[in-house]
Amino acid sequence: MAMETGLIFHPYMRPGRTARQTFEWGVQSSVACDKAGFTTMMISEHASQIWENIPAPELIFSAAALLTKKIHFAPMAHILPHHNPVKLAMTVGWLSQILEGRYFLGIGAGAYPAATYMHGIKIPKTDVNAGTATGGANTNLLNEMVRESLFIMEKIWKREPFFYEGKFWDAGFPEEEHAKTEEDEQHMLANYSPYGGSFPEIAVTGFSYNSPSMKLAGERNFKPVSIYSGIGALKKHWETYSEAAIKAGHTPNRQRHAVSQTVFCADTDREAKKLVMEGPIGYCFNKYLIPIWHRFGMMDGFAKDAGIDPAKADLEFLVDHVFVVGSPATCVEKLNALFERCGGWGTLQVESHDYYDDPSAWYYSLELIAKEVAPRVSLAGAKPTTKVPA
Amino acid sequence: MAMETGLIFHPYMRPGRTARQTFEWGVQSSVACDKAGFTTMMISEHASQIWENIPAPELIFSAAALLTKKIHFAPMAHILPHHNPVKLAMTVGWLSQILEGRYFLGIGAGAYPAATYMHGIKIPKTDVNAGTATGGANTNLLNEMVRESLFIMEKIWKREPFFYEGKFWDAGFPEEEHAKTEEDEQHMLANYSPYGGSFPEIAVTGFSYNSPSMKLAGERNFKPVSIYSGIGALKKHWETYSEAAIKAGHTPNRQRHAVSQTVFCADTDREAKKLVMEGPIGYCFNKYLIPIWHRFGMMDGFAKDAGIDPAKADLEFLVDHVFVVGSPATCVEKLNALFERCGGWGTLQVESHDYYDDPSAWYYSLELIAKEVAPRVSLAGAKPTTKVPA
Repeated sequence: MAMETGLIFHPYMRPGRTARQTFEWGVQSSVACDKAGFTTMMISEHASQIWENIPAPELIFSAAALLTKKIHFAPMAHILPHHNPVKLAMTVGWLSQILEGRYFLGIGAGAYPAATYMHGIKIPKTDVNAGTATGGANTNLLNEMVRESLFIMEKIWKREPFFYEGKFWDAGFPEEEHAKTEEDEQHMLANYSPYGGSFPEIAVTGFSYNSPSMKLAGERNFKPVSIYSGIGALKKHWETYSEAAIKAGHTPNRQRHAVSQTVFCADTDREAKKLVMEGPIGYCFNKYLIPIWHRFGMMDGFAKDAGIDPAKADLEFLVDHVFVVGSPATCVEKLNALFERCGGWGTLQVESHDYYDDPSAWYYSLELIAKEVAPRVSLAGAKPTTKVPA
Repeated sequence: MAMETGLIFHPYMRPGRTARQTFEWGVQSSVACDKAGFTTMMISEHASQIWENIPAPELIFSAAALLTKKIHFAPMAHILPHHNPVKLAMTVGWLSQILEGRYFLGIGAGAYPAATYMHGIKIPKTDVNAGTATGGANTNLLNEMVRESLFIMEKIWKREPFFYEGKFWDAGFPEEEHAKTEEDEQHMLANYSPYGGSFPEIAVTGFSYNSPSMKLAGERNFKPVSIYSGIGALKKHWETYSEAAIKAGHTPNRQRHAVSQTVFCADTDREAKKLVMEGPIGYCFNKYLIPIWHRFGMMDGFAKDAGIDPAKADLEFLVDHVFVVGSPATCVEKLNALFERCGGWGTLQVESHDYYDDPSAWYYSLELIAKEVAPRVSLAGAKPTTKVPA
């Protein structure tokens, strides 16, 4: 089966953009991706970062609901420790109904210490990772909150009477009272379970080599989403996921695996590289992602793949050795090389960037990726299936 | 100043409607009202009732953001005890920015016991109203939660460092770290304060004769919104509000007062009454609102105004004596009579109903209300200002 294409929208809009512009860019991107044949659009949820400044991805999904036809949407991810789980369960269920099932649910514990702090969560000094650079992400406390939140959400979606007094939240569901007369509908309860009455597909993202999310995904049969951080980590993600899945009695399926990457396609390699280096993608990497990747050791995997010192990894290194940038033929070649080395994945989740002022080159790239590149990258074989136009 | 018109959307869609239909009807209504000249659209937030089945009004506001030009939106109300206040503050602020200020914030404690229970809140038996028919609405506990939530939201909007350990929630705001180089933007914090950097206008609804919300509104200089429950209650609402406002040093202004009413306008009185009795409005009242109004004593004010036994108040009584139904001339007359008796208000908040299948009569009514009725109802004088077409 040919690789599918999706978008992941963080949104990496440069500081100074208004919320209105960011929101518009999200809605416009959903329409462009839907038309180009992208199957999914993920939007991340962040409380603290100016470069990742969408606190409520559901506001873009609902605005896109009536403007798109096929594309599926997913918050990637709702940070469960930041939400009242009952409220979130109802919003998720209702949105899934509005989208008539074009929805799945990414969940996370929160990666940024400032965001955790804003939501009133103090990580005990004795907790795992409490003293690391990430200052509290992936601690026992946050993971325990994620588990309890999900437990409550599933109870709410089941719509059976319960009352649960948890460590972090309490929640309940009442008995539906009986009507006194046939006319009387005052007691009937609204139904905010996800579309079709079943639970939505749940997805989690992994980044680090020993990502605990990948283990959780395997155990719970969640959809695994890897934020690309080098071939070593990617191989390890699949290994961790599939081992945990098999142990829990699930069948791991590479088709469900999504991998995010920086991808840009133009008519020629030269043009693609120039547009990336000098355009919004290069700007974002220089100002934000390269500094933050260095800070959190997120450059290490790429540097290791290439055998260089992480401190020396700059934008041009990334464009040449890490990103998928070039003509359609070059992008196909790079992706098939990656597929051969790591086993492949189901969906390429293209990292979105700030082409709000002039989206033409970006939209053209999305079209090429969906129509010229993806059909020539396949899980079965991992070789181009037809001759690719130069 | 002439009366303004708004919509209030609960949405009173009949059971069996899909979430998609309800959502579409909300978005379509926002566009129709914006075109007709309505100044505000309020949407309520409910967790339990099938007839009031919008758990997340912000999803309709964001979908309407790019489709409307002038109309202002308000959740009426976000039920503060059901939300994580930090999360809600950021969503509200971001949405206010997306709408470039066309937003204000209704807040509430929650009126339905089932919804309170779902969110894990158990009202102590010793609390005010704990044993009444409403089973816990307006108790000390819920009101205390509202106050703490609002306190936290305002701190988040201020964007100054704090950490607060509350009775119900903890919250904080970090110091913005300093960049190590000019290039580095990784530490910059996103800004989710409401549009313009100030707090949004806050509104509360009152229903009962001795509404505690009206006192709160006066004290805090909030916008008062009365759910119409009879002339006696309406007069009392304004009295309570303005007394509390003056005591707190604010100037009460009737222009800020919004009053929700069931209003339907057609070319003739006969046609208007027939359309209401036999259409979606009559259906909703017979199936849902009349039973629930009887149950919670919400018919008492109307019955008292008319000097009848509340048990005898039926749909036709409401149409003839409570609602504003008729030709434009009749609606003007009825509204001016109300204005004379209670002093008038700034915005007539028309209760929305389920005209999803065929909206033509409803849209025509909205047009007549905004263009033929409202301009002839005025706070200054409370008399028709020009001759009204028959």
